[in-house]
Amino acid sequence: MRYVARVEVGLKPGHSDPEGETTRAALVELKYPVESVRVSKVYEIVFEAESIGEARVKVEEMCRRLLANPVKDDYRYYVEEVRG
Amino acid sequence: MRYVARVEVGLKPGHSDPEGETTRAALVELKYPVESVRVSKVYEIVFEAESIGEARVKVEEMCRRLLANPVKDDYRYYVEEVRG
Repeated sequence: MRYVARVEVGLKPGHSDPEGETTRAALVELKYPVESVRVSKVYEIVFEAESIGEARVKVEEMCRRLLANPVKDDYRYYVEEVRG
Repeated sequence: MRYVARVEVGLKPGHSDPEGETTRAALVELKYPVESVRVSKVYEIVFEAESIGEARVKVEEMCRRLLANPVKDDYRYYVEEVRG
């Protein structure tokens, strides 16, 4: 069966976010009164698995092995079956 | 008042996504049966505005002026007041 996972990966609190800081500076330059910007990434992954349980195990593994850096990233996801 | 906007920016359908394709290839290399990966970005922006209406107008402008490329990106957002 086909599943789709939506995985969001962002920096853990306290880690500096250079891309967010650059974006904040650019918005302030444009005269927006911006206090902070944090940037995270969303991966929408379509893949095959035998069951929703196996699908969730695979996504957890993908996060740990490739998508997130355990030292500095937090991640969260949800998985659902692709219908039709 | 302080507001927080969560803005998600991703490629319009049909636009090629090199980062997604690279991620897909890396996951396939790790033996996951992945069909497609799309990558988008989330900006969490804390800023000042006089009202929720003004806050929404500002976020729409930030998207058009800086965060999204109108040729290739779609974007969506929600805005809420920061309490306390």
